[in-house]
Amino acid sequence: MIRIAVDGMGGDHAPEPIVKGTLMALEKFENIEITIFGDETRMAPYLKQHPRLQVVHTTSYLEMGEKDPIKQYRTNKEASMFLAMQHVKEGKAEAVVSAGPTQALVVGGHFIIRRMAAMHRVAIAPVIPSFDGRGRILLDSGANVDFKPEHLLDFAIYASIVAEKVLHYKAPKVALINIGTEEGKGREFDKETYALLKASKDIHFYGNIEPKEVLTSEADVLLSDGFTANIVMKTIEGTAKGIGAILKREIKSSLSAMIGALFMKRALKRFKQSLDPSEIGGALLMGFNGIVIKAQGATQAYGFYNAIRQAKEMVEVDVIRLVNETLDKKEAKKA
Amino acid sequence: MIRIAVDGMGGDHAPEPIVKGTLMALEKFENIEITIFGDETRMAPYLKQHPRLQVVHTTSYLEMGEKDPIKQYRTNKEASMFLAMQHVKEGKAEAVVSAGPTQALVVGGHFIIRRMAAMHRVAIAPVIPSFDGRGRILLDSGANVDFKPEHLLDFAIYASIVAEKVLHYKAPKVALINIGTEEGKGREFDKETYALLKASKDIHFYGNIEPKEVLTSEADVLLSDGFTANIVMKTIEGTAKGIGAILKREIKSSLSAMIGALFMKRALKRFKQSLDPSEIGGALLMGFNGIVIKAQGATQAYGFYNAIRQAKEMVEVDVIRLVNETLDKKEAKKA
Repeated sequence: MIRIAVDGMGGDHAPEPIVKGTLMALEKFENIEITIFGDETRMAPYLKQHPRLQVVHTTSYLEMGEKDPIKQYRTNKEASMFLAMQHVKEGKAEAVVSAGPTQALVVGGHFIIRRMAAMHRVAIAPVIPSFDGRGRILLDSGANVDFKPEHLLDFAIYASIVAEKVLHYKAPKVALINIGTEEGKGREFDKETYALLKASKDIHFYGNIEPKEVLTSEADVLLSDGFTANIVMKTIEGTAKGIGAILKREIKSSLSAMIGALFMKRALKRFKQSLDPSEIGGALLMGFNGIVIKAQGATQAYGFYNAIRQAKEMVEVDVIRLVNETLDKKEAKKA
Repeated sequence: MIRIAVDGMGGDHAPEPIVKGTLMALEKFENIEITIFGDETRMAPYLKQHPRLQVVHTTSYLEMGEKDPIKQYRTNKEASMFLAMQHVKEGKAEAVVSAGPTQALVVGGHFIIRRMAAMHRVAIAPVIPSFDGRGRILLDSGANVDFKPEHLLDFAIYASIVAEKVLHYKAPKVALINIGTEEGKGREFDKETYALLKASKDIHFYGNIEPKEVLTSEADVLLSDGFTANIVMKTIEGTAKGIGAILKREIKSSLSAMIGALFMKRALKRFKQSLDPSEIGGALLMGFNGIVIKAQGATQAYGFYNAIRQAKEMVEVDVIRLVNETLDKKEAKKA
């Protein structure tokens, strides 16, 4: 049985979509047990009895705009997110899923679950949409600003294992995001990272990609430093949002176009789905001694269900053990 | 009379769209004279006699994939692009327009036209589409990797003058692209740049913007270092391309959607136009002692015409003199 701890109060619309997504996952997957942490009174309208669901009551939770997660960790240990993480720490669950503030998950991960000995940094890795529909892992989007190339190699190894074992991509290709495709492009950081990735036997290195291929490239894992990948993720989001708004405006501007949109209803729905992150799941927080999944803050029930599915799959294939084994071998080689 | 030098052989489809765009501009604007540099035999099928058009024959030109523009500059001075730049250098034209390789324009700018004394770096500044249709200046997209915050302030001043005088935005707002909106976000570089921009009396500083607002923000000028802004530009391009391909695929996947698309034909055309860089013109190369406009490599006649229009407008308002005056005052204040 896979045991998952859920932060019932994290997310813009919590607890409703969180509780509903949790119940969807329990119905769908017979090999999971969930403990949900949150305010019982507020969750009650959506909760149902379920033999594999436990509820742990706490009135405390983190606001979405939380600016000082370290202070919260110090003063607010009963917050639903931190209790859920504590559950993993105590060996009562293998994974935690939350739609709460990302930086609080990073802080809780470090202080409660702790970092894997073999990983020297923690990465945030969203799965972004792609033309072929299978999604790509982008990292590090965590806004880390003091990275070294070695850290990116560790992330590449972790992400490759997820891409192969969880997303079922054969020999997943890892690409470095850069301003040109030729070797030698970019900053010193990019040149060093390129050399390191190219030399590694633990990944399949594809070379540099320019982000004009960001939704269409053949690569499965897209790497850059914590500043750049965060900028790429937000630019994709901003462009998709802007384009969607322009399309809507143009459709609404004429009767003929509105009639056309009726005929295109199903196609437009599939179009929207292709770009919808909730179809894929949440972002992976890589580097902790437990699986940590960050669902979208604005998640609805289906998106949260998918984040739970992701957590379950990560546990099923024992990602953390596989990553530890690969990194240990790599460390041994170096020594 | 405004005199413009055109590189007749630069661009993926040259010389056809270049010659046609040049003739369009001559028809439309009575206050311009154009000298076009290129292979007369290859341009002849599209050329027409025009009292304000001169043709200078040269068989040499630069390939679009040119990897070593410095070597080209040394060994191939008769290339159409370099001859056009020479024309500006000799005071025979105020502006040069080319759809040829960007880095060759940068090299030619440095060696032939020369940098303005008050600008310590040269920036590439494309005008990117926006929801409100008026476009935004993004810089530096030139892949410069050794910037200092002071250089970004110079660019911000130059871009603000263009935004106000050429694009007619009142009190144009300058924003710093960053991973969060609060002051203090980002790398050391971003924090220093923020402080410098905030303190400047020569621009209207808006603060940080996250690229999830890249097509919809209120800011008119979007700034970042040469690596990041290049990544942003290419991510916008890649996302738009990917989304366009997905939309096309979904429309083609059903008869009903194809019928719908017929009703939406005009709306879809306007949608495409909203995102089409050729509606706006080329990228500005800021920092030379002359106006240098880089049209899209894949430009068609209309896009090239728009790049010429842009060059004309930059000359009309005497951008370089205005920038020099503002930067001189700024230098004087510092001294």
